[in-house]
Formats: sequence, structure tokens, C-alpha cells
Amino acid sequence: ERDAVDQIRRLLNQTMVPAEVAHALESTPPREREFLWQQIDTETQGEILLYLSEELQTEFLERMSAQDLLTATENLDTDDLADLLQRLPTYSIQQVLDSMEAQERHRVETVLSYPEDTAGGLMDIDSITIRPNITLDVVLRYIRRHDELPHSTDALWVVTRSDVLVGRLYLNELLVSDPGMTVREVMDTEFTRLDAMTPEDEVAQLFERHDLISAPVVNEQGQLLGRITIDDVVDVIRDTAEHTVMSMAGLDEEEDTFAPALRTSRRRAVWLGINLLTAFLASSVIGMFEGTIQKITALAVLMPIVASMGGIAGSQTLTVLIRGIALGHVKGNNIRWLISRELVVGLLNGALWAVVVGLLALVWFDDRMLGIIIALAIIINLVVASLVGTLLPVVLKKLKIDPALSGSVILTTVTDVVGFLSFLGLASLVYLS
Amino acid sequence: ERDAVDQIRRLLNQTMVPAEVAHALESTPPREREFLWQQIDTETQGEILLYLSEELQTEFLERMSAQDLLTATENLDTDDLADLLQRLPTYSIQQVLDSMEAQERHRVETVLSYPEDTAGGLMDIDSITIRPNITLDVVLRYIRRHDELPHSTDALWVVTRSDVLVGRLYLNELLVSDPGMTVREVMDTEFTRLDAMTPEDEVAQLFERHDLISAPVVNEQGQLLGRITIDDVVDVIRDTAEHTVMSMAGLDEEEDTFAPALRTSRRRAVWLGINLLTAFLASSVIGMFEGTIQKITALAVLMPIVASMGGIAGSQTLTVLIRGIALGHVKGNNIRWLISRELVVGLLNGALWAVVVGLLALVWFDDRMLGIIIALAIIINLVVASLVGTLLPVVLKKLKIDPALSGSVILTTVTDVVGFLSFLGLASLVYLS
Repeated sequence: ERDAVDQIRRLLNQTMVPAEVAHALESTPPREREFLWQQIDTETQGEILLYLSEELQTEFLERMSAQDLLTATENLDTDDLADLLQRLPTYSIQQVLDSMEAQERHRVETVLSYPEDTAGGLMDIDSITIRPNITLDVVLRYIRRHDELPHSTDALWVVTRSDVLVGRLYLNELLVSDPGMTVREVMDTEFTRLDAMTPEDEVAQLFERHDLISAPVVNEQGQLLGRITIDDVVDVIRDTAEHTVMSMAGLDEEEDTFAPALRTSRRRAVWLGINLLTAFLASSVIGMFEGTIQKITALAVLMPIVASMGGIAGSQTLTVLIRGIALGHVKGNNIRWLISRELVVGLLNGALWAVVVGLLALVWFDDRMLGIIIALAIIINLVVASLVGTLLPVVLKKLKIDPALSGSVILTTVTDVVGFLSFLGLASLVYLS
Repeated sequence: ERDAVDQIRRLLNQTMVPAEVAHALESTPPREREFLWQQIDTETQGEILLYLSEELQTEFLERMSAQDLLTATENLDTDDLADLLQRLPTYSIQQVLDSMEAQERHRVETVLSYPEDTAGGLMDIDSITIRPNITLDVVLRYIRRHDELPHSTDALWVVTRSDVLVGRLYLNELLVSDPGMTVREVMDTEFTRLDAMTPEDEVAQLFERHDLISAPVVNEQGQLLGRITIDDVVDVIRDTAEHTVMSMAGLDEEEDTFAPALRTSRRRAVWLGINLLTAFLASSVIGMFEGTIQKITALAVLMPIVASMGGIAGSQTLTVLIRGIALGHVKGNNIRWLISRELVVGLLNGALWAVVVGLLALVWFDDRMLGIIIALAIIINLVVASLVGTLLPVVLKKLKIDPALSGSVILTTVTDVVGFLSFLGLASLVYLS
């Protein structure tokens, strides 16, 4: 027994790297997870927290004593520490800050002063800076005085006396150039400086577009504040992409896969409640036509087909648009083209499946009128679905509402209502007159 | 007119970087896109192709003459060239290969010999290698003989005479260490070597877990084949995450946002057709109860609510599971815990919303029996939805079927059928007896 626990402790604290331990914790149900967490040395816990989802970070951090918190976060990079602090209540943040040295404290406060999802919130403050007028030989000797360079250092920042960023000296350039040359002669001056308030998805696009490993963050005066490294950007890219999948099902990308049943139920109940409202709306539309349904029960049998085809067509358009907006492909000047493309697609697929469903309905119920009615309803619903699927995300985005989260609920409501209304409405016109 | 075209040409060929031109092309409808493409110099086209989606790569590549193809791809890295070649028909690949020098040709053929979605298919063959027994001073002088280092070089590879990889010398270490030391003394020996057949998502997980900038690919004898760099891994991460969103709507992540209407219609028609089959299946279930519906039309009004609540609950579970599997959180030993958690969630939310819907139905139709029947049907459907939502992706994954693509169709079919069957079935038992 004792031996087994010792072995687990060794595994968690020595053999595995922090990211692997974090992955193991994420993959474990609550009770075992708690046990594993208790076997991890406090000094190692800080590093591991960095790789956990926000939900788990909050859960573990909230239960740590002030002393443990300090021990755990002692050796973290400034940006990583700032990330973790944001999961804590204000008075705990203050406690940690109070215990730090003035210089380090100032650094963390700088990062904390920017929103978490901006360049300022992502940046690290450990850059190595040099002056433009020294020779590479001096730079090489200056570097050699360090024990190690900050992680992911691919360039040194060239700044003036007043900290204004004027250039970037790649380590690769430093290594292949003649040591007698000056920094000014070798440095790169045409690179992107990120404003501290740049949103994180723009930062990610920039890194992807220029295959960057690090990028500098500057203030309005052009002074160097810090640098962003690719490992943090990779997290942004993964989170952004996951956000869409999870939001479309009313979930959060920071959610713990192994959250306990009660917490999970409570969270999902909200989404089910919202959908119940829209379901009742659709039902009330059907309710308007009870008389018609009583006369022609085939309508009740076929009506879900009209709603469902509209829902599928609409959600395809919606997904294409949400992705196009996220990637920055869809902009003001090309939305008109997309609307007309989607309308044509809606009409073509509407016509195709109207004929198929119409014929099947005709054969099934031996009623030519029913075939014509369902065919018309399908065309109407698919065209409306295309239009709403295109416009909805664009409008939501303009209103600063997340299209991935609310788009699919609104869309399904529309396709259900229009589907039932057109099918049962047309049927009432024909059969009740 | 002339002037404007000249300006566009300058913009595309000189001012913008290839990734920006690619982004502009991705964001443009077909006709304008064609015009822009024609303004780009053939030598620049190769670089730009690298940043386009597979659909656009294929479209442009298919129309290029053999001569243009050679001009465009002349200056590309081996791995990038191999990527592009995979979009071409076999005879064009041969033509490009035939025109290359023996050494370069051999490199490209090496990369092409591995599947596109493995470490071998992702790797680059331009690594700098050194021997373990030389001093850092010699390494520094050796590096200085290069005009530049390969992109994203953060380490040199230490190999034996027979090319077996024995270490990794970080440029950062090289810069801070005493030049008199030998490579063997400074090099890192504990790092992950990727087998050429490692699947790309495992490669991505490894890069994320260890915050890597590059990693070596070796063959079974441990000989260095090439290296993978973070920029290629970022593409893998984005594609994998997008794959889930797009697949769930029956779309492809490599799809062109501005594909023409006809091509788009054809692609989406397939998905609508598959969904039509499942919709007819659900309808046939309703058809079994036409008699009951004719007696109690309220059933037709309320039945979509039962199906829809099941669909929502199921898709939430499905999404959590698909993501958990993709992240590697869900494994054989914790699926049982997840099943029981989801069952509890299904029961709790089933009970909650059963009461709400039951009461609403009772008030609306003033029929206590109807309230009880719909309440029971909702509990049944939500529990089934939880179970299927958990098991389905696990089973599909085992069968090597993509759960993101087929999961939602199968799930909706189940929740529709079970929803209609339980609600109308219970009602028939009660009202027809």
C-alpha cells in the first residue's frame, strides 16, 4: 500500500512533465483526481495548474491556503502567474501580490492591468533587450553572462535609451553574421509590433500568417512592454476553435470533462430550458392548426420532415458563416455575394428535395394535393433557412452577441416555425376551403 | 484602368506577404478571385498556395501548366512542396519530380512516401546536424559558414557517423555555454523522438504538452529523417479543431467559403438526403399511431417537444464526448464513470423538465393524463439520449468511423424515434384501452 503511494508520488513529481500530469488529472473522475492532486508537491502544483482548464484551475486554487499558493506560484513566469491570479478572488490576488518583491510585483501588475484576452494579458515580461550601436561580438559576450535565455527566445529586442523598440535581432542572424558588425546593421526593422490592447484572436491570426515564434508588445509610445510566445498562441488557437463546437451545444470550452453529475446537470438545464421555450413556440404554431390535423392526420406524420430539412439546411449555412467570420473571410463587402449564393443553394436543394419528398408523400398517402403542399413547404423552408443562416451570424456579430452560442437556437426556432406554418397553413387553405 | 491594375499587381506581389495574399483570395468570390490570381507572378504563386485551403490549392494547381508548376514550386521547402504535390494527379507529380535534381528529388520522394497525416508527411528535411565530440567553438564557426539557418531552427541535431540521433543542442544553450565545452557535454539527450508513422494529432499533442518549437523525426534504426516545426503543427491543431465543427454539419474543414453555388448545392444535397432518410424513419413511427392522433390531436401538437428535448440533451452529451475523445481525456478505464454520470444527468434533467412540461401540458389542454404521459416520455427520451450520446462516439471511434461526422445524424434519429415512440406509444396504451 505504502509502496504504491510512494510510486505514484514519484511518478507525478519526478517522472512526468507538468503537462502530462495535467493531462492525467483532466482525464480522471473527481475522487481519484483529488487523491492524485494531494500526492503532488506544492512547489510543482503551480506549473501543473498552468496546463489545466479554467474550471479545474479555479477548483484547485480556491482550496489552496495563502501559504501554499505562494509556494506553488513562486517560480512561474510573469504571464503565467497573472493567468492563474485571474482565477482567484480579489483579496487572494492582493495577498499574493503583497508577498512579492517590488520589481516582480510591478511586472505582474502590468500584465494584470490588461484584459486576459488581449496581447497585454498574454505577454511575458522577461525579454532580453540590447542597444542598436553595439557590435554582435559584444552581444554574444553579454548573452554568455546569462545562465539561460527565457523560454522560446528566438530574437533579442533592440531598444533605445528610452525603451522604444527599434529592431529585432534574430538569434539565427546573430549566429551566422560577422561578429564585427553592429546590431543596427543586422537587425530586422520590418516586423509587426502588437499593441497591448490587440484582441487575442488577432494576435493568433498574426502568428499564423507570419509563422512567428515570438512577437513584441508595445505601448502607445512604442516602448517595449513584453513579448508573446507561440506556446501561448497555440492555446488561444485551440480555445477559439473549441469555443465554436462547444457553444453550438450550449457548452463552455473551459468545461471539465469529468465534472460531477450535479454541477453538469445544473449547467445543461439552462440550455434545455431555453430550447424548451422555442419548442413550445413551435408547438403553439401546430396548435393553431389542430382542426386541419384532425381532418388529415397525414399532416402530423409528415410535418416533422419539413421542419427537419429546414433545420439541417439552415445549420449548414450557419456553420459555414460562423467559421468564415471566425477566420476573417466574411466581411462587409462580400456578404451580398454569400447571401445570393446561399439563396441559389437553398432554391436548388429545395427544388430537388421538394420533388423527392412530394413524390414519396404522394405514394405513401395516395394524395396528389398533399405531395404538392409538402413540396411547396420544403422549398419555402429551405430558402428561408438559407437566408436566416447567412444573415443571423452577421447580425449577431454586429450586436456583439456570440453567433456560435445563440445562432443555432434562433435558427432552429425559425425553421421549426416556418416549416410548420408553411406546411400546415397551405394544407388548411387547401383542405378547409 | 491600367494604373489600377498595376497598383493591384504591386500590392499582391510586393507589399503583401504570401499569407496575406492567400487570406485575401480565401475571402473573395470566384470571379474576383480569378482576376487577383492572374495578377500574381508565377514565382510567388507557390508560396501563396501553401496558405490556401486544400480545395483552393487543388483548383489552382489543376489549371497550371507543367512549366508554371515548376516555376512556382522551385523555391519551396521540401515538406511544403510535398504537401502541394499531393493535390496533383499522379502524372503531374511525376513531371515535377523528373525535373528536379537527384538530391532534392530524393528528399521529396522520402516525404511523399509517408501518409500526409503522419510525422513523416509533415517533416522538413533541411536540418543542420553536428557530431557530439566537437567543441561549441567549432560549432559556432561551422554555423557562421551558412548564409542563414533553416526557418524555426531552435536546435541543432547531434548525430553519429551513421546518422543515429543522439542529442539535441539548443541554440540558446550554445549561446550561453563556454565555447570550450564539447557538444556532448551541453547537448540535451532527454527529448522525444517522433517515429515517422506517428499520427499528426499525436504530434500536435506532444508539441502542446512540451511547448516545442521543433521535434526530430527518426526511422526505426533511430536515424534522423527530418524535423517538424511548430508552424506546421499549428495548422494541424486548427484543422483538427475545425474538423469537429464542420463535420457535425456534414461539411469539410477544407471547404472554400466562397465555393460556387452549384458545387455547394451538390455537396450539401448529400447530407440533406441522409437526413431525409432519418426523418422518414421518424415519420413512419408517427404513422403507426395515426389512429391515436386522430382521436387526440393534442398529441400532434406536443410530440415535437419530446423529440426536441431528447435531441438537445443527446447532442450536449455527444459534444462533450467527442471533444473528450479528441483531447485524449476519454479512455477505456473512465468510460464507465462517464456513462453513470451522464445517466444521472439525464435522469435529473429528465425529471426536472418532465415536471415543467407535464404541468404546462396539463394547463394547456386541461388533461391530467396527457401531462403524465408527456412527463414519462421526456424522462425516457432524456435517459436514452444520455446513454446513446455517451456510447455512440466511443463505439464509432472503435469502428474507426468519424464520430463528429456520423454521430449527430445517428443520435437525432434515435432521439426522434424514441421520443415519438414513447410519447405516442404510452398515449395509445392509455387512450385506446
